[in-house]
Amino acid sequence: MNNRYCVIMAGGIGSRLWPLSRKDTPKQFHDLLGCGRTLLQQTFDRYSRVVPKENIIVSTHIDYSALVREQLPQLPIDQVLHEPAFRGTAPSIAYVACHIRQLNPNANIVVAQADQLVLNEELFVETVERGLDFVSKNNKLVAVGIKPTVPETRYGYIQADAPVEGFDGMYNVRTFTEKPEYEFAKIFMESGEFYWNSGIYIWNVNTIIDTMTTYLPEMMGELEKVFREIPVRAERRKRGYEIYTSFPNASMDMSVMERADNVCLLVGEFGWADIGTWDTLYGTLPKDTDGNTVMQSRTLKYDSRNNVISAPQGKLVVLQGVEDLLVVDNGNVLMLCKKGSEKHIRKFLNDVRMKLGEEYL
Amino acid sequence: MNNRYCVIMAGGIGSRLWPLSRKDTPKQFHDLLGCGRTLLQQTFDRYSRVVPKENIIVSTHIDYSALVREQLPQLPIDQVLHEPAFRGTAPSIAYVACHIRQLNPNANIVVAQADQLVLNEELFVETVERGLDFVSKNNKLVAVGIKPTVPETRYGYIQADAPVEGFDGMYNVRTFTEKPEYEFAKIFMESGEFYWNSGIYIWNVNTIIDTMTTYLPEMMGELEKVFREIPVRAERRKRGYEIYTSFPNASMDMSVMERADNVCLLVGEFGWADIGTWDTLYGTLPKDTDGNTVMQSRTLKYDSRNNVISAPQGKLVVLQGVEDLLVVDNGNVLMLCKKGSEKHIRKFLNDVRMKLGEEYL
Repeated sequence: MNNRYCVIMAGGIGSRLWPLSRKDTPKQFHDLLGCGRTLLQQTFDRYSRVVPKENIIVSTHIDYSALVREQLPQLPIDQVLHEPAFRGTAPSIAYVACHIRQLNPNANIVVAQADQLVLNEELFVETVERGLDFVSKNNKLVAVGIKPTVPETRYGYIQADAPVEGFDGMYNVRTFTEKPEYEFAKIFMESGEFYWNSGIYIWNVNTIIDTMTTYLPEMMGELEKVFREIPVRAERRKRGYEIYTSFPNASMDMSVMERADNVCLLVGEFGWADIGTWDTLYGTLPKDTDGNTVMQSRTLKYDSRNNVISAPQGKLVVLQGVEDLLVVDNGNVLMLCKKGSEKHIRKFLNDVRMKLGEEYL
Repeated sequence: MNNRYCVIMAGGIGSRLWPLSRKDTPKQFHDLLGCGRTLLQQTFDRYSRVVPKENIIVSTHIDYSALVREQLPQLPIDQVLHEPAFRGTAPSIAYVACHIRQLNPNANIVVAQADQLVLNEELFVETVERGLDFVSKNNKLVAVGIKPTVPETRYGYIQADAPVEGFDGMYNVRTFTEKPEYEFAKIFMESGEFYWNSGIYIWNVNTIIDTMTTYLPEMMGELEKVFREIPVRAERRKRGYEIYTSFPNASMDMSVMERADNVCLLVGEFGWADIGTWDTLYGTLPKDTDGNTVMQSRTLKYDSRNNVISAPQGKLVVLQGVEDLLVVDNGNVLMLCKKGSEKHIRKFLNDVRMKLGEEYL
């Protein structure tokens, strides 16, 4: 049990949920599901059922470490790692792997995302435990894949190959694919071979460090040198941060998972969603009889249908004659966007950055 | 010149402009036209050109006297009269008339509304001066009537009768009419006999007190008794407020103007609008090439047309695919209302009062 570790990745900006998710308070720090706990807190609660609390590490950007401490006050400061810069998932996972190996060279790690919905926690716990057990005996990188329920175009897919003998629901992996067009997503789903890539990874610390050394040798070399040569923790952290900033941007999927030949897929059937977009959030939250979803605020609705409303607690939103609109009121930004046009949010953000300034991001 | 007085009526709630106009800060205290001065301040500036500043009295509800003092710091406290209760325009005008007669028994008074737009101030000043001159010599109640430019259904109309000999633009009055249906408004306009009732009234202090004594004898009797019998001003005010609260609700138009036989109409051609509704405000404010009107806030607009946006200064409003919508973000209320449905605002307010509570009014 004490070899089990969890890394909660909580450093993202969540820009597709702008303007609720903001640079200073990204989505993982919001109670998006209205259950009284933020996504980060829910994630912590969920993984606490699999991994001892003292082995849970939150990896976040340095700007958010105060928020993490505020929302998880029980977490000792040593269990919060601060990335000094946004460099994508690969450097982040590499750093935390080196850090954990220093603590426990036999660690088996589950990498968790801080912005996911899980419906059946019992099945979830069972799946992750089986994965941790598997990687303790096999030099494999395990990606948890979710059986598709709809031909979703907002997720990446993993194609399963032959099943792993003697381990139910575990497959070798043929390919990782990026978010597909709708036609492909349909084919993927019908084939029965493709699974949503949940971004939940499970591996032994030595397996991941060895594999990353193969595909990102420079980065891993520099990191391992720091951890090997600087015994004092504070100093090591300081130097680690310095070299971190010099790393290129790299995503774990593209740099490692899609290239490695020791990747397996573990099927998860626990009811899962990535809360990355307004669209997913709308799909996830309860609706009134007219199809309106209201987050936090109070509403009076007249002749209004299929809207998504997010406004601060205590604010009254009055709707009259409004349909298919996404309304997000947060701080100094109010966004009204026709539903289905959420894909434009990146453009809005770009324009805001160019024309108006950082205070609206 | 020193017989000229002005009463600025600034006690209304402006509920048709909710949720920008709020119980705690009604529309007259907002810079609705984005010119750097609130409607009250603009009204004060405008009438200062006709009446000496020391003869301008602001009549407001007691809840707003601090706002009046804040926005017109140059106004001595004696020139702010506080109604202790909302009782409509007739008691308000009666009280202030008694008050002014105490100061100057030869006063000629212009009653001004604090929520109007005037385009040509030169012509405006000339018109009001002519009216004040007229009532100093004639025992008449003068209502300023505006020549209609569209068959407006949101204004009351005054029908002119025979012209007053020897005084250009002055007519006897045949009838006052309430806000008409569109078909009637069209007929009114085409007839050339009907004028918009601006709510700007001009009269000598003795004429108005005598006329009101005819139509509201009880109220005037009680008020005059207080002013006659209590010499100390503070005490008089105290007693005056006590009886004020006991008065029934009464509008000046229905209780006095529509019944009196000494009413004249003075034609105003100075470009006028009553800023009572979102619709008028939209008609008044500048629009971008897509017909959007934005008050105060900053906006990014994509594929959005004919909207009215009012949000706090410094707030960014992003619109995508939105048409014909009235968006008002003020304090703890956000209202999205299809344009043309502003008539429902009274219903919203009722529902808010019944279901949610005073803090949203």
